[in-house]
Amino acid sequence: MDSAALLDLLGNENRRRILRLLARKPCYVTEISEYLGVSPKAVIDHLRKLEDAGLVESRVDSQRRKYFSIARNLRLEVNVTPYGFGTKSAYPASRGLDFGRCRYLSLDVSSSLEDDPSDAHALAGELDRLEGLENELSMAQRWVQGRITDVMDRLSESFDGHGSLDGRFYAEVLAAMANGAETVPKLSHRVDASPEMVEEALETLARHGVVESDGDRWSLREE
Amino acid sequence: MDSAALLDLLGNENRRRILRLLARKPCYVTEISEYLGVSPKAVIDHLRKLEDAGLVESRVDSQRRKYFSIARNLRLEVNVTPYGFGTKSAYPASRGLDFGRCRYLSLDVSSSLEDDPSDAHALAGELDRLEGLENELSMAQRWVQGRITDVMDRLSESFDGHGSLDGRFYAEVLAAMANGAETVPKLSHRVDASPEMVEEALETLARHGVVESDGDRWSLREE
Repeated sequence: MDSAALLDLLGNENRRRILRLLARKPCYVTEISEYLGVSPKAVIDHLRKLEDAGLVESRVDSQRRKYFSIARNLRLEVNVTPYGFGTKSAYPASRGLDFGRCRYLSLDVSSSLEDDPSDAHALAGELDRLEGLENELSMAQRWVQGRITDVMDRLSESFDGHGSLDGRFYAEVLAAMANGAETVPKLSHRVDASPEMVEEALETLARHGVVESDGDRWSLREE
Repeated sequence: MDSAALLDLLGNENRRRILRLLARKPCYVTEISEYLGVSPKAVIDHLRKLEDAGLVESRVDSQRRKYFSIARNLRLEVNVTPYGFGTKSAYPASRGLDFGRCRYLSLDVSSSLEDDPSDAHALAGELDRLEGLENELSMAQRWVQGRITDVMDRLSESFDGHGSLDGRFYAEVLAAMANGAETVPKLSHRVDASPEMVEEALETLARHGVVESDGDRWSLREE
C-alpha cells in the first residue's frame, strides 16, 4: 500500500487509537468499542480499512469469536523540506531476517565542507554523499524495527508458562526498561498495568537473572 | 506540534498536494488553486492549518501579494509493530547545525544472538541495544535532513546569477542526479521541467566543473 493511502489511514484519530490498542494486545470488536467509546459499527468500518491495508488481521478463538491484532510491522517516514516532500513506507520483516549474518554499519556523518562551503563541486559531492547516507539510514532503521519485533517475539515465547503472567507482558516490561523506565510506578504507567503486576513480573525476571534492583531502581543485569 | 496533530494534517490529500507544490516552489493562493483544481477558499483554509502547524509561512512580494512557502524541515516517523504504535516528529534545523563539527557514527548492526537465541538475559540485552540504536538512527536521520537542506541552500545561492535560471533549479537538478536520474528525460521528469531547461542547467553545471557527461549519461564529476 502506498504512502499516500497509509497517511489517509493514519490521519484518523480513532484508527490511530485502534492501532495503539491492538499493539497492546489483540482485541474483540466489543472490547475496542467499549475501550474507545466508539460504536461497534464504526469500529468494524475502521478495522476493515486497516485489514485492507494489511496492517491488521483477524483470527477466531475457541468460541469462534473474531479478534483482531497487528498483522505486520510498518514503518512510515515523512520528510518535508523547502526542497521536497518525500514519503517512504516499508513492512520490515521480523522472523528470518538476517539472523546469523553479522553486519557492521559505519556511517560517516562528518562534514567535509569546512574549507570552501561555496565550492559548487564540493557541495554537489556532499549532497550525493548525504542522499546515499539517508538511504542507508532508512534501511538500517527498517532492519532494527524488524529485529526488535523478532527479539520481542522470542522474549515472549521464552517467558510463556513461567509465572502466572502472559509471556508477552514480560517482554513489554523489558522493552519499557530499555526505553528508560526504571521504577515500578514508571513501568506501571508505561506498560499500562497495575504496580502489582509489574512487581510480579520483575520478581520473575530477577529470578531468571535478567534484571536486578538497586533500591527502587530496576535495571537490566549487565554482563 | 505533536505527531497526532501532524498526522491529522498529513492525512488530507489536498494538504499533501499543497505541501508537494510549495516544496517545488513558493506559490500564490491563485497558483495553488489553479494547479490543484481546488477552490481558493479551500486552499486558504488548508494553508491556515499548515501555517498554524508552522510548516508553511507567508511573505509578500513587491506588489504586496501574499505567497506561501515551506517554513521549516519536518521529519515524521511512524512505527507500527505487534508490540507498539510509535510516532516521532522533529523539525531538524539546517543552518548553523554542526557545521565544522566532525562526527563519525559507528553503528553496530551485527547480531549477538547466534549461540542461544532463547536465553532471556541475552535477548534483553539485545533489546536494550536495539532500542538505543533506533534512537541513534533517528537522530542521525534528522541531522542528515538538516544537512541536505543546508547544502541545497548553499548550492542555490552559489548558482544565483549564473546562467539564466533560478539558482534553486541547479540545486534540484543536482539532487535529482544524486538520487539516480542520469539522463535528460529522467531528470526532466524528476524535476518537472522541460528537457531544454534541464539541458541548459547541465551545460552551466558542466562549465563549472560540477558534472560531466558520457554519451547521454550525466553524472557528478568525481575527485
